[in-house]
Amino acid sequence: MTEIADLTATQTLARIRGGTLTFEAVREALAARIAGREPVVRAFAHLNPAPAATAGPLHGVFFGVKDVLDTADQPSQYGSPIWAGWQPRADAACVAMARGAGAAIMGKSVTTEFATRFPGATTNPHNPAHTPGGSSSGSAAGVAAGFFHIGFGTQTAGSILRPAAYCGVVGFKPTYGTLPRGGMKVMSESLDTIGILARSVADCALAMGALTGADHSDPGVAPRPPRLALVGATGDTAALMHRVADACRAAGAEVVELTLPPVIAAGLEAHPWVMNMESVQALAWEFLTARDQLSPVLRERLAEAQAAPAARLAQARAAFFAAQNAFPAAIEGFDAVLTPSAPGEAPAGIHATGEPTFNSLWTLLHTPCISVPAGQGPQGLPLGVQIVTPRGQDAACLMWGEWVRRALA
Amino acid sequence: MTEIADLTATQTLARIRGGTLTFEAVREALAARIAGREPVVRAFAHLNPAPAATAGPLHGVFFGVKDVLDTADQPSQYGSPIWAGWQPRADAACVAMARGAGAAIMGKSVTTEFATRFPGATTNPHNPAHTPGGSSSGSAAGVAAGFFHIGFGTQTAGSILRPAAYCGVVGFKPTYGTLPRGGMKVMSESLDTIGILARSVADCALAMGALTGADHSDPGVAPRPPRLALVGATGDTAALMHRVADACRAAGAEVVELTLPPVIAAGLEAHPWVMNMESVQALAWEFLTARDQLSPVLRERLAEAQAAPAARLAQARAAFFAAQNAFPAAIEGFDAVLTPSAPGEAPAGIHATGEPTFNSLWTLLHTPCISVPAGQGPQGLPLGVQIVTPRGQDAACLMWGEWVRRALA
Repeated sequence: MTEIADLTATQTLARIRGGTLTFEAVREALAARIAGREPVVRAFAHLNPAPAATAGPLHGVFFGVKDVLDTADQPSQYGSPIWAGWQPRADAACVAMARGAGAAIMGKSVTTEFATRFPGATTNPHNPAHTPGGSSSGSAAGVAAGFFHIGFGTQTAGSILRPAAYCGVVGFKPTYGTLPRGGMKVMSESLDTIGILARSVADCALAMGALTGADHSDPGVAPRPPRLALVGATGDTAALMHRVADACRAAGAEVVELTLPPVIAAGLEAHPWVMNMESVQALAWEFLTARDQLSPVLRERLAEAQAAPAARLAQARAAFFAAQNAFPAAIEGFDAVLTPSAPGEAPAGIHATGEPTFNSLWTLLHTPCISVPAGQGPQGLPLGVQIVTPRGQDAACLMWGEWVRRALA
Repeated sequence: MTEIADLTATQTLARIRGGTLTFEAVREALAARIAGREPVVRAFAHLNPAPAATAGPLHGVFFGVKDVLDTADQPSQYGSPIWAGWQPRADAACVAMARGAGAAIMGKSVTTEFATRFPGATTNPHNPAHTPGGSSSGSAAGVAAGFFHIGFGTQTAGSILRPAAYCGVVGFKPTYGTLPRGGMKVMSESLDTIGILARSVADCALAMGALTGADHSDPGVAPRPPRLALVGATGDTAALMHRVADACRAAGAEVVELTLPPVIAAGLEAHPWVMNMESVQALAWEFLTARDQLSPVLRERLAEAQAAPAARLAQARAAFFAAQNAFPAAIEGFDAVLTPSAPGEAPAGIHATGEPTFNSLWTLLHTPCISVPAGQGPQGLPLGVQIVTPRGQDAACLMWGEWVRRALA
């Protein structure tokens, strides 16, 4: 029988409704799991000693909140010594939305420095010698380890989808702007998107529905098999993607390899410029007042952006606009894109969190995307596969994500 | 001779460079003007007792910062009793960018409640019985009254362009996302855009260039007269717009009346839904913890949004995307749109700030737009006219704005 701490949010709520589980029992089971595994996993930047919740559709569901999102009752330190001990006055809007829906906040989850590259101490719950991915390191690891049901994450390049794949959980980035960024330490105005990590697609649908009121009632009910565009199935990911494509075909899907047009590739080339040049602006106060407390890695990464002419940013944003405008036509006739979530298993070591090779494009296109588990790699660590739909088609993304997951099961 | 407090930022910097003016003399002149007129104009939510500045391209330029933008050295109260006395730890990113460029912060300027409808106490510097417009009330009035050179404003519907027109100053809303929103009390994720109010187009170019590094060196140098699409010249604004169109034609422009396609009109119809439904999300913490301190006006305005199904927001955002995608083709062959800034002169009374009739469309399209002065109306109060260019064409917007201003001079 599944341990209480390993139940999905959906399963937990069903048991509470059925009278076989209580809020307190869930909290105790999660606390016991945390007591046992947190010393190795290190998912928390701050652990809430007494998580409570009001009534609501998420009463009984526990959240980990990535520590770039403000919390009124817990410190918000953004993964940086500059903000050590900072206690905001208010919750970030999405955190207050979760509380308003009845969620309990288990704690603040570890982020890399300002959600960029310099990692925290979190390890991969499947093997502590490997990274959990980042920058939403603690939210992915905490969901995988059974510390909380739902983790808030944020993505500028691949910070939700990649750690989801590395930790063997589901990561969902909704359409850009779906969850409001008020009270978030935003690093890239054009890219940063708040999303969630969870143990199932149904949990993503549950959480997004309760947060936003959107109807994602049963993502498992697809009217027919999808027509999928296979993108980026090259190099180290080719074997995985061919296996996934075959499984989808066996379940009735049409899967066609697709090369995206040059205007989309040009958008991807512009991604680092937008991300890094906007990050220099976002950190203007920190640069003025505490530059020496930024990590050398971050300072080095931003140095090229600081030296670049502003026209480079304008051109890069124009490349984004062109790619965004071109994308719907580029995948016309397809229901969704099927593409890797990450370049293989989680790398060894926790000094780096892996590469967003297969994620930056969908972040700049502002499209919803979901990573679902897709078995294990040669080292026995989780793999994931990513499903992408056009901007605004969040319900379809969840639905086809669940369809692909079942095809692989 | 122009008084020091009435010089533009560009003129001020030229005199400082020429050795005929000092930073201290500018500060004293502005302080004297404030001492004389602030009791009636009431532009400040907080006045900085000792504005200082470092070296930089804006050394000698004084800013008023709309009080929805955080400041590390001054309270940030968002026009709401819920945030009375709140002292943030850090500057908003755009404020730190201004300081880093050498600007001095003269104070926090009055905003309506959370930049929505419930007004502050600011009056119109041209006639204190009339509104200055809003929500960037204090920034527009303060620039007009000679309290500071540049005001930071924000726009969700018409909150920069309309007060600029009502106060007889220039208002510039850059392309959405150009100035980062970190440290801003964002009310609508999809709409809110930071921009500036100033005494000349050249000052807008100076400020935007110094803040972002973009080259807006001389917006007055246009290669040829523009081809302008005349939009919305109906009702009370028809006489003004025909006068403006005639002046532009006399200066060599081609001016053609244009009706935008239905997909654009559908975007405009969706605007209140996105604005209000996103505002409910943005105020999630305030609703949870201090609902009774929201104004009845705001609660009433948001009640309909709270009652609406989430699908309404998804549909409204989809209407935005469609309108954004369609706009470049809709004005193909034109250099810019020429349209009213506001429905006439500033209304009497300070219990309301006027209507964003001619502004919401350009906010949702994410396009740059600028309001330049266009004479006076029958009550002797300022009028403005608006110039709009496609997303990303900020330099062109400043250039054609200055071209139109000169054609009207």
